[in-house]
Amino acid sequence: MNKLHKAYSAIERLAAGTSWPEHTTVLPAREAEKKQFWPKGFGAGTASAAIKTKRRDLLVISADEPAAAAAVFTRNRCSAAPVVLSKEHLARSAGSMRALVCNSGNANAATGESGFRDAQAMASKTAEALGIGPEEVLVSSTGVIGVPLPMGRIEKALDSFSAVVLEDSAVDAASAIMTTDTFPKFLATDVALSTGTIRLCGIAKGSGMICPDMATMLAFLLTDANIEPALLQAMLSKANARSFNAITVDGDTSTNDMVSLFAAGRGERLAEGSRDAEIFYNALESLMIFLARLIVFDGEGATKLVEIRVEGAKDDADAEKAARTVAGSSLVKTALNGEDANWGRIVAAVGRSGADVLTERLAVRFDDLVILQPGYVSDFSEEKAEKVLGERELTVTISMGDGPGRASVWTCDLSREYIEINADYRT
Amino acid sequence: MNKLHKAYSAIERLAAGTSWPEHTTVLPAREAEKKQFWPKGFGAGTASAAIKTKRRDLLVISADEPAAAAAVFTRNRCSAAPVVLSKEHLARSAGSMRALVCNSGNANAATGESGFRDAQAMASKTAEALGIGPEEVLVSSTGVIGVPLPMGRIEKALDSFSAVVLEDSAVDAASAIMTTDTFPKFLATDVALSTGTIRLCGIAKGSGMICPDMATMLAFLLTDANIEPALLQAMLSKANARSFNAITVDGDTSTNDMVSLFAAGRGERLAEGSRDAEIFYNALESLMIFLARLIVFDGEGATKLVEIRVEGAKDDADAEKAARTVAGSSLVKTALNGEDANWGRIVAAVGRSGADVLTERLAVRFDDLVILQPGYVSDFSEEKAEKVLGERELTVTISMGDGPGRASVWTCDLSREYIEINADYRT
Repeated sequence: MNKLHKAYSAIERLAAGTSWPEHTTVLPAREAEKKQFWPKGFGAGTASAAIKTKRRDLLVISADEPAAAAAVFTRNRCSAAPVVLSKEHLARSAGSMRALVCNSGNANAATGESGFRDAQAMASKTAEALGIGPEEVLVSSTGVIGVPLPMGRIEKALDSFSAVVLEDSAVDAASAIMTTDTFPKFLATDVALSTGTIRLCGIAKGSGMICPDMATMLAFLLTDANIEPALLQAMLSKANARSFNAITVDGDTSTNDMVSLFAAGRGERLAEGSRDAEIFYNALESLMIFLARLIVFDGEGATKLVEIRVEGAKDDADAEKAARTVAGSSLVKTALNGEDANWGRIVAAVGRSGADVLTERLAVRFDDLVILQPGYVSDFSEEKAEKVLGERELTVTISMGDGPGRASVWTCDLSREYIEINADYRT
Repeated sequence: MNKLHKAYSAIERLAAGTSWPEHTTVLPAREAEKKQFWPKGFGAGTASAAIKTKRRDLLVISADEPAAAAAVFTRNRCSAAPVVLSKEHLARSAGSMRALVCNSGNANAATGESGFRDAQAMASKTAEALGIGPEEVLVSSTGVIGVPLPMGRIEKALDSFSAVVLEDSAVDAASAIMTTDTFPKFLATDVALSTGTIRLCGIAKGSGMICPDMATMLAFLLTDANIEPALLQAMLSKANARSFNAITVDGDTSTNDMVSLFAAGRGERLAEGSRDAEIFYNALESLMIFLARLIVFDGEGATKLVEIRVEGAKDDADAEKAARTVAGSSLVKTALNGEDANWGRIVAAVGRSGADVLTERLAVRFDDLVILQPGYVSDFSEEKAEKVLGERELTVTISMGDGPGRASVWTCDLSREYIEINADYRT
């Protein structure tokens, strides 16, 4: 149970240090062991298909009734078979889905025609077990690339499911999709809308700063709220840009990344542009940013979770360019690992980011400690800088001037352990 | 002299494995100890200003007569003071220069107004010593960022020069611009033009795969050929795109990168579009690619020099996108370090590169060993793959289809040593 305690304490610590929007209440992490943690209208089942090890590596999430569904997928042009199939299913069913099936340990990527047929078989078997149509199932895989799925064992495991025995907890579900994550990732919030309180719950997997399994990032979000598919998709896409697309990793976009959101449709339908829609969106964005930070926090070899915050840029796009470049710089990340206040590397990364920058106006803070003032004035206490850099979490704020543009990207440090984990992953 | 032997053997080994263009003869590396290694019309002097250590850290290269000059500079918007000043001087003198001064150990970057005045003082002192105009001097610096230059010691050292005592060798010169390079980098070729043989010589510094000193990359090229400045600049820019701009490093473009080319103007003037111009260009491009590969070869922590060659792409731009993305992928680079034939990471990097790719047509070779055939067929001998991956140099060829586009980018592996070198550089 060591792993679970690590999960609970990491999640609760990070949640306590997060400012949550109005009308949003975070559930205690250990509640996730109970089935009631899930929003009403959903059930989950896990099983072992012995794909890489004996632990549970299959997850099915089922909606009691057709749920409104939205999803965002990797933009990698070598998308894995399940990504291609899930896109098709989402389009064909016009955003109404009944279930999701996911395996870990094997990405079913770069597997050609037969890989696509395997993804179809996963959908069919799941549909058969639940008594629904195959096109009502989203399929997701994560793990090694270029190896065929052990379909015999997967189909056998899926046969064991039925709509009535989906009794597993969010902890079980989050554990079943892990590859080399060191702990399962999940959170639920209650959101008080004017028409009543709804629940919003998410599970995610990252498996490291950039994960050996191609950095596959998965997140499955569920709510009992009533939202029509087009609005759900718009909200998911917008929040995704500010959360899962604002973490780095090292740019190695996986062939399998996928984020989905199912809404069971209880209570009154949310109207676009309403105050309730705004409250729901804020809760969704906050939950997604939280899960994204949790992924970086669990970075393999990572010792720090660092927010790169850019402000005063010409516009948001410019701020994002600068933030992403700094967050992705190996030189900045190794300096963070060494707890070295090497601000020159930050300046150089901003300079090459393509963002408009008046170099003489650049300023840099580590948390509240001023490291660089405009005009390249740098006069800070090394002792204080060391203290801030020694923290598990910190914010690097880069001020580019007095423009309105701002952006945040979350990153981690680059350590020797990262190399050790990744140099011999396949073998 | 261990360092020199390492330099000679690395340079000669790499040169022997390179296919040189017609009419180009490479000089033996150890000839660089003699003053005659330089093209006629140039002299070099080195000195110590004790900037970081006691070794020689100042270089002056002087042309006996005004030389045609061309240069390319970092595109980093936070360019260092010497870069800004050198651009001004080049523009003001219409491409006619007399000298170049370079210090190592301090980048004079992010140093504001006073840093710019220091760069001006370096030009003035050099000009004074040589009896030329300050605007006829290019200035270059490499080293730590954000620290003022020790101008007292630098000016004193520059005072010791005069046009008549510039007797140092290319080995001395290449050594004086090193930061954490493990050996000095230089090469000279004789190029047989129809009007006589000219010499083309270059020295360079990298200091690693991505260097702690902000990956500053410097190269200074000299020739006695007669080429007017506009043609010289066109040739330098074109060759730079295929050489120093085709190595990675980790994208951390330095604030100080600079490549310059001086032509002393002996013999008949090269006519644009002539066969001699073509011969000279080919020699120049080959020399620049050679020096660029030498920089990657000396990558800190790097154990391998790897050419990422893309062929069959839609066009050259697409090929370059794919090659750069693969060459910059931390996952690919760590797999190379682990000598692991993890082709899935290559496929995924191509997929996210933005290049047009028909995934089913992708093929991958390591040297001559076929690793992946179209249709995601992967059936190779792990033993043979291990052997190829165990080499100090190898080529990864990625075939994207039957288009005409091709590009090469040189990279190295990402090792634990890289992190060790970079985590605590500043302190």
